[in-house]
Amino acid sequence: MKSFRKEIWFELPERMEFVNITPEVEVCVAASGVKEGLCLVNAMHITASVFINDDEPGLHRDYKKWLEEIAPFDPSPQRYHHNLTGEDNADAHHKRQIMGREVVVAITASRLDFGPWEQIFYGEFDGRRRKRALVKIIGD
Amino acid sequence: MKSFRKEIWFELPERMEFVNITPEVEVCVAASGVKEGLCLVNAMHITASVFINDDEPGLHRDYKKWLEEIAPFDPSPQRYHHNLTGEDNADAHHKRQIMGREVVVAITASRLDFGPWEQIFYGEFDGRRRKRALVKIIGD
Amino acid sequence: MKSFRKEIWFELPERMEFVNITPEVEVCVAASGVKEGLCLVNAMHITASVFINDDEPGLHRDYKKWLEEIAPFDPSPQRYHHNLTGEDNADAHHKRQIMGREVVVAITASRLDFGPWEQIFYGEFDGRRRKRALVKIIGD
Repeated sequence: MKSFRKEIWFELPERMEFVNITPEVEVCVAASGVKEGLCLVNAMHITASVFINDDEPGLHRDYKKWLEEIAPFDPSPQRYHHNLTGEDNADAHHKRQIMGREVVVAITASRLDFGPWEQIFYGEFDGRRRKRALVKIIGD
Repeated sequence: MKSFRKEIWFELPERMEFVNITPEVEVCVAASGVKEGLCLVNAMHITASVFINDDEPGLHRDYKKWLEEIAPFDPSPQRYHHNLTGEDNADAHHKRQIMGREVVVAITASRLDFGPWEQIFYGEFDGRRRKRALVKIIGD
Repeated sequence: MKSFRKEIWFELPERMEFVNITPEVEVCVAASGVKEGLCLVNAMHITASVFINDDEPGLHRDYKKWLEEIAPFDPSPQRYHHNLTGEDNADAHHKRQIMGREVVVAITASRLDFGPWEQIFYGEFDGRRRKRALVKIIGD
């Protein structure tokens, strides 16, 4: 069994932002030499997500508005007890649960085994600092 | 290491519908010859989900109502910028994030290693067209 | 390829409660002898979750309040058809979809390959009975 590991680093200027990391993950799959296997991609931080959806700016705008309605940014400890710790990012811990921590993608014939529109995104909900996603591949 | 791949196809008459695909996945596990491993089942489309929950019609009715409240169908671009693209399915991209893209199930002693009520569902949120789920199995 | 399987049992006194199971999962990784691989941890019950987030009591209090707003406990069948079955736990089936069924964690150099704050939680939404999470590890 082969295995491969790589970190992808980010430092995004916005609090909330989505980055298409499919090309970086494809490079990992090629470098791994794995023909048949599984590829895990996960946020290494608990105020960020990795998810698969459409690379369409209007949809991303919709997601941001929707997530802000479901879990609004509010630095006060009145809404979020977590912010009593001195943090202001409780909303980001909630948004990340909606969008998910990780994706697992099949590798078939040395490629990400994707449907027609699937693209992998890093979802940042508490940006403006250095953060990471992990790519881990196992297979033959 | 063994690997196995199969697509399961759907063309559902309703916009939103849940289909129990556990029997099809069990056939894949048997066909794979894998005794100990992991089974990934994912939607290959970004307006659909694969999830594990109860095969109980009342619950499915509850899920549909709840998802409609969280992300209502609305073809207009006023609510969803995504629908400026000519699509009317922005709500489906949101519903899919709540219910998830994929499940990973353990295979133990050649069987899906399930608790008492776990069943695998394909969740369609923009039906009336041909769509697919992927089953990928790796193990020994 | 090596594989390892273990169930972790719970009987929690509250309806909704979060338990940090990272130490138990770390013991499994050590016992598995796997140096490079994947570790699946999933709830075996459909009214419970396994998720990764922060071990911070204020955040957990926030999650409970938020989940109660998104899917309130209500034993009546007026809100939830599922409760026509004689159950009172429809809300728990909804909360579990928000928090997720499972996590997949990379194993690198015989350790859970985690970012700085990642911790694994069992999330109970219908407690006061014996329930289980599954740890399944594969790799070399």
